[in-house]
Amino acid sequence: MTRRTFLASSAALAAQGTPSINAARLRQRLEQLSAFGRPAGGSFADGVTRVAFTDPFVGASKWLVGEMKAMGLTVRVDQAGNIYGRRAGTDPTAKAVLSGSHIDSVPSGGNFDGPLGTLAALEVIDTLRDHNIATRHPVEAVAWVGEEGVAFSRGLFGSNAATKGLATKDLAETWNGMTLADALRKIGGDPARVAQPWIKRGDYAGYIELHIEQGRRMLRQTSQIGIVEGIVAIVRYPVTVLGEANHAGTTMMADRRDALVGASELVLAVNKLAQSLPGNQVATVGMLTVKPGAANVIPGEVNLTVEMRDMSSATLEKMTAQLRAECDRIARERKVEFRWTPVALRDGQPSDPGVMKSLEAAATRRGLKPQRLPSGAGHDASNMAAICPMGMLFVPSQGGISHSPRELTTWEDCANGANVLLDAMLELARA
Amino acid sequence: MTRRTFLASSAALAAQGTPSINAARLRQRLEQLSAFGRPAGGSFADGVTRVAFTDPFVGASKWLVGEMKAMGLTVRVDQAGNIYGRRAGTDPTAKAVLSGSHIDSVPSGGNFDGPLGTLAALEVIDTLRDHNIATRHPVEAVAWVGEEGVAFSRGLFGSNAATKGLATKDLAETWNGMTLADALRKIGGDPARVAQPWIKRGDYAGYIELHIEQGRRMLRQTSQIGIVEGIVAIVRYPVTVLGEANHAGTTMMADRRDALVGASELVLAVNKLAQSLPGNQVATVGMLTVKPGAANVIPGEVNLTVEMRDMSSATLEKMTAQLRAECDRIARERKVEFRWTPVALRDGQPSDPGVMKSLEAAATRRGLKPQRLPSGAGHDASNMAAICPMGMLFVPSQGGISHSPRELTTWEDCANGANVLLDAMLELARA
Repeated sequence: MTRRTFLASSAALAAQGTPSINAARLRQRLEQLSAFGRPAGGSFADGVTRVAFTDPFVGASKWLVGEMKAMGLTVRVDQAGNIYGRRAGTDPTAKAVLSGSHIDSVPSGGNFDGPLGTLAALEVIDTLRDHNIATRHPVEAVAWVGEEGVAFSRGLFGSNAATKGLATKDLAETWNGMTLADALRKIGGDPARVAQPWIKRGDYAGYIELHIEQGRRMLRQTSQIGIVEGIVAIVRYPVTVLGEANHAGTTMMADRRDALVGASELVLAVNKLAQSLPGNQVATVGMLTVKPGAANVIPGEVNLTVEMRDMSSATLEKMTAQLRAECDRIARERKVEFRWTPVALRDGQPSDPGVMKSLEAAATRRGLKPQRLPSGAGHDASNMAAICPMGMLFVPSQGGISHSPRELTTWEDCANGANVLLDAMLELARA
Repeated sequence: MTRRTFLASSAALAAQGTPSINAARLRQRLEQLSAFGRPAGGSFADGVTRVAFTDPFVGASKWLVGEMKAMGLTVRVDQAGNIYGRRAGTDPTAKAVLSGSHIDSVPSGGNFDGPLGTLAALEVIDTLRDHNIATRHPVEAVAWVGEEGVAFSRGLFGSNAATKGLATKDLAETWNGMTLADALRKIGGDPARVAQPWIKRGDYAGYIELHIEQGRRMLRQTSQIGIVEGIVAIVRYPVTVLGEANHAGTTMMADRRDALVGASELVLAVNKLAQSLPGNQVATVGMLTVKPGAANVIPGEVNLTVEMRDMSSATLEKMTAQLRAECDRIARERKVEFRWTPVALRDGQPSDPGVMKSLEAAATRRGLKPQRLPSGAGHDASNMAAICPMGMLFVPSQGGISHSPRELTTWEDCANGANVLLDAMLELARA
């Protein structure tokens, strides 16, 4: 869609009494937030390093609270440091409808992964106020803490803590010179009250998160709104391949038990398997180390990770079984041994079918091409799926690039996403 | 050969006027030397850590000088710390015949790799004295410094320095808290006189080195004396595989440029190629690192080494060409890029045909089964090939194990090797 058709359809919708978000205000907030963690002397295009619990993150959090207060919202920071801003509804017994994302980044990350969804939630509320639209349910915006898994190596930190609680012993973990307890205090949390989950099933009437795609599926289909079918299930197996370290000059080829040769066969088998099945499953060996690791020594041990993702846990279990059978064959042929560490499967979290339909209808109404697709990445939305009807929508990432200063989503796509979010939130909040 | 037939053939040879070495004395010296660098409270079976330039190495060197002096030899320590003990010949114009090896070890090494060849050279000279055998040429024993390449990461240190000289700038290199200059002074060397080589073509009438095989070829053939055809040529290529690092969850299989998948194809191609050609060539990927190296990130870069060894440089060049063609195919199919760092080929060093025949005849005469084979490992003998007729003989390594406390060569095999060495040295020294 060109800029011209976008403005034309906004005008047509306005004529029907359908409000649209203020794209300029959304962009302005994204630019303001990008200053926290920006490299010294850099610009918006240089991205941000705004890791959870660090000083730039605290600065951004304070700015966000300021924005929410200026909007007239009821602001609350929970025991994990998650920030909420609520606009009241007309029915005091109705549960709130929640939307948001995160404002932490990876080191040298971009300006859209997290901030777009967080600030679009604010923009939705601002739009309701602009148009004097009252809703039965309260509408609440949230910024979850530490989604990226950099700080304390824990992804989805804030939404995990709120919906599952946090083990007391974990509070003593240290990262970046702080214990987790101190880190929580630094961002206004309260380590004394994190043991039990505080967001429970039924506490919200719905949750919708807008996020950038971080892939290329939407570019391939030239779609404009991604209707997320759910967050994929993930299995991640540490695998050890054992052979025999030996002299690379004096050991005949026939006498070798080369762990890296065995591991290489597994790497190719993992890649081939994911491509040989129908569907969207992905499989990756991302980590691989060789011992002893000298040019003139035959590798005696290789440690690697096999990670597989799909909406269907059954597919992952089937893939695992096929790979383990393949390893039995490699082990015999290469005279090596494979040791798989058993891991718990993280189940996929399907989106609510009603919310998906609502998002799809809104996109179509606004003249935007929708595409259903799974989310291969984890998102805080996966935790909210256990609490209330959950939905998620994507907008395209230019080049499929994320976790990089080059991460880019056009302002038009940002506005498209926020408008569809607005429509679906309104539907939930009016219900 | 059983112990009984061994003694019988020694007796028969003695009756013919052919001397044999004193196996008990050789064993005693091997046991004495093993005390330097032995783990505290350990025994002979616990191996040694006697890395060049360390205190246990200095202790062993002093002991060796003491043995040589007690034998009545003229002892000399050169500017690189190599130790020589010479028995005079009858012709003052004749060049010496040299034999020896090294007494340094790898960390947690064995008692035979190096010590056997060094102490067998002493035993040969002792045997000549026992039998009052005069030779036209002087006979000299040598212990080369730092063959193992642990100290200062330089293999064949002493023989390289003596035959090629040492760059002055290298003297400032530090290892284990010492500069190389200080390390040389510590072992009685002289860093001021190492720039120019001091052993030149024609300085010796011949060089023969006895060593353990460090492989399993002789065990496979149940041979007793390995007649080394030469030291193999080696090429070692650092290779970089470039793909694109990306999110392992959101990047579809079809969109990936996975550097580790490309590298794994190369690892298997290297292994297959070495086995598909006739001959003794070996090829190894011993080092491989993955960037960024996280379970949830598609590898963007892999660095690895391809090492190949064969007596024939032409074979190595042909293998290199085949592998590079294979990489072109992998690069196209996997959308990755291969960068090979050009390296200088280290040429193979063939043994002298006359010395090989002499060793073979001696083995046969003593009732020992000989086997011609290349040395897949580097040895100081490779440097002496440029100086004078060079020969080398192997005795079997139990289990093919070396660079380990479990390294083992039977006392009988040690004696067999020393006897064949004696015969071939006598032939050279009398000529």
